Amino acid sequence: MKEVIPMRVLSTDLSSHIGERVTLAGWLHAKRELGAVSFVLVRDRAGLAQAVVDGTLDLRPETVLEVEGLAVTASQAPGGVELQEPSFSVVAEPAEATPVELRRPVLKETLPMILDHAAVALRHPRERAKFQIAAASLAGFRRALDGLGFVEISTPKIVASATETGANLFSLDYFGRPAFLAQSPQLYKQTMVGVFERVYEVGPVFRAEPHETGRHLAEYTSLDAEVGFIRDHFDVMAVVREAIAGMAEAVRERAAAALELLEAPLPEVPAEIAWVHFEDAGVDDVDLAPADERRLCEEHGDWLFVTGFPAAKRPFYTHPEPGRPEYTNSFDLLFRGMEIVTGGQRLHRYDDYVAALDGETEPYEGYLQAFRYGMPPHGGFALGLERWTARLVGARNIRETTLFPRDRSRLTP
Amino acid sequence: MKEVIPMRVLSTDLSSHIGERVTLAGWLHAKRELGAVSFVLVRDRAGLAQAVVDGTLDLRPETVLEVEGLAVTASQAPGGVELQEPSFSVVAEPAEATPVELRRPVLKETLPMILDHAAVALRHPRERAKFQIAAASLAGFRRALDGLGFVEISTPKIVASATETGANLFSLDYFGRPAFLAQSPQLYKQTMVGVFERVYEVGPVFRAEPHETGRHLAEYTSLDAEVGFIRDHFDVMAVVREAIAGMAEAVRERAAAALELLEAPLPEVPAEIAWVHFEDAGVDDVDLAPADERRLCEEHGDWLFVTGFPAAKRPFYTHPEPGRPEYTNSFDLLFRGMEIVTGGQRLHRYDDYVAALDGETEPYEGYLQAFRYGMPPHGGFALGLERWTARLVGARNIRETTLFPRDRSRLTP
Repeated sequence: MKEVIPMRVLSTDLSSHIGERVTLAGWLHAKRELGAVSFVLVRDRAGLAQAVVDGTLDLRPETVLEVEGLAVTASQAPGGVELQEPSFSVVAEPAEATPVELRRPVLKETLPMILDHAAVALRHPRERAKFQIAAASLAGFRRALDGLGFVEISTPKIVASATETGANLFSLDYFGRPAFLAQSPQLYKQTMVGVFERVYEVGPVFRAEPHETGRHLAEYTSLDAEVGFIRDHFDVMAVVREAIAGMAEAVRERAAAALELLEAPLPEVPAEIAWVHFEDAGVDDVDLAPADERRLCEEHGDWLFVTGFPAAKRPFYTHPEPGRPEYTNSFDLLFRGMEIVTGGQRLHRYDDYVAALDGETEPYEGYLQAFRYGMPPHGGFALGLERWTARLVGARNIRETTLFPRDRSRLTP
Repeated sequence: MKEVIPMRVLSTDLSSHIGERVTLAGWLHAKRELGAVSFVLVRDRAGLAQAVVDGTLDLRPETVLEVEGLAVTASQAPGGVELQEPSFSVVAEPAEATPVELRRPVLKETLPMILDHAAVALRHPRERAKFQIAAASLAGFRRALDGLGFVEISTPKIVASATETGANLFSLDYFGRPAFLAQSPQLYKQTMVGVFERVYEVGPVFRAEPHETGRHLAEYTSLDAEVGFIRDHFDVMAVVREAIAGMAEAVRERAAAALELLEAPLPEVPAEIAWVHFEDAGVDDVDLAPADERRLCEEHGDWLFVTGFPAAKRPFYTHPEPGRPEYTNSFDLLFRGMEIVTGGQRLHRYDDYVAALDGETEPYEGYLQAFRYGMPPHGGFALGLERWTARLVGARNIRETTLFPRDRSRLTP
């Protein structure tokens, strides 16, 4: 890695400097006194390093410091190296003791306590590891879609009308006029198929979710894609498979240490993911319940597409199943017992939109322009980053894989 | 490029298929009748292809179609190839003639007319080229910072208090409570220096800008980064230089055709960008005016850092200049006569924040946690994507480099 700012050695690079005097910089993570010596753990962005001190070190945990010392092989130390004869210089002192005990192998505090003190709690190696996995996943998603000729777009989050339904919308004072926060980039990404054919966007989406569950948030990161010139939703599902495989591959390449720390098994992504039509999924309702998602993955394994959802539960732009309009050319992707992707083929003829909207086209004028002037068959999908990461690391609640979650009761930190 | 969905040949790949019968798919871009034959231009995501038709083709512009034909060398055609003996099959018909004339080499309509019909106007090759450049820029930004060990983060856009000042905030009904749209990820990205040391975020930011100018929007895409263990703002400026160089390089690699189409000269990014202290910049006020930015670039060239802005115009978290607290360790980067980056070193000691906020710390509790528990010297910057792209392609108004701009009067499409 190129260094543009002051040289120091990272904790994980110590083993390349055996026998040298080097300087580390980071936080005092933990201290342990053992007779006449103390073992001091220093945390930096890469990991932990151990320094051996004669006597005790009179500094608090979370003191920011530089440590200069001799790198020596030590089998019990992190990475098999420790710093001996260290000298410490304090860069910044904490004002008081931390409200969460970062020195423990796993944080013991409750989830609300951890979330209330996110700025500190996220410093724990296991906490931050989840977000290193999330970051690698984003890089893998983009790399996979870039490789398929997709173009990244940035579409507005302040919008004049609902994307899907009037429910769950946050409303806004826009220079004295009413406006809303976009529930998804759905309408814009479809429009952009007319320009770039293949587009994606990674960004925040907003849902005024009235329920507090472990799988819903008022704001989350949506990985959206849309693609033109498809035959049907199975072509979209093939793109989903490529995106997921790219995400898993990037996590393996870029976040291997985080995976190992969390003992999180990376799933194999099969060349073709199995699918079952909604009709054959053994579901009593017009949509999957969480229990259905768990049961289907128990029956089918880590990955399963459910296709052909009933029209009653899919939004107005959904393409019907040819010959059976009570079903749709749509799908969900289940991963380890939870829906993480939803998608499908969309309507592409102007007249079909006018009919689907019962002629109430006025709020959608800007969107319908695209269909008025010629659009190919197309479809797309959306993947929730926090859910993907939660499934990957085995977190029960998506608040555990969100830096600063937003829900009905949580607006800070 | 791997194809996961139906095979077709892209317009720009025709020259690899001379003498073969191939199928293109796209939009009928333009027709020109010349005696007994017509030349039909088909537009796909990659470019334009010409087909030669006996007689006339009775189809409207923007008809979505597939064209099967024989690829033959033809020096006057785009890419030096044309399709002969073509047969057309219509995929989707437009409902009416387009409101903007896409066949012209450059759109002739006014900017408001173009923006009102963005879904169609963006189909023009020159319009979409600007956003291919923007997409390449984003990829280059991320690649440069990934290479320096930065971690991508996703922070909330719905917040409980102002980031910088109380002005220019959009307010929101959050489950019956007041909330705001984040003016920047500033406070969150600083907090995350305590976790990852080096972070970046690409996402929307929101400013209730009362003025309608060619350089301000109510919503834009901000490229934010923050880095710890710096000496001062010059270390941050070194990161800015790497980011900018990475963006320019990615545009060269990934959007060469778009640059060529727009005849946009890509700037050289020098190994060290020149800088001038605010004191020596010949400015009468406490901040740069647009005229100052233009003048300074006339004097210094494409790139110039202005450093040391007066404390009076920088936000509360700005680090003062050692020994001269009326100035700050801050900077702007000017590019071709306009500020596109702003940044600097931040305060990092808890007591300094308490003083800077005059003890009014309560709205910032979640943020100040980071400083309460030990933070290293750090700094960062924000780059406006639309301004960068506008400077790159020579657009006068940043609305020309925004897919769907938002301003005081514009909330749709």
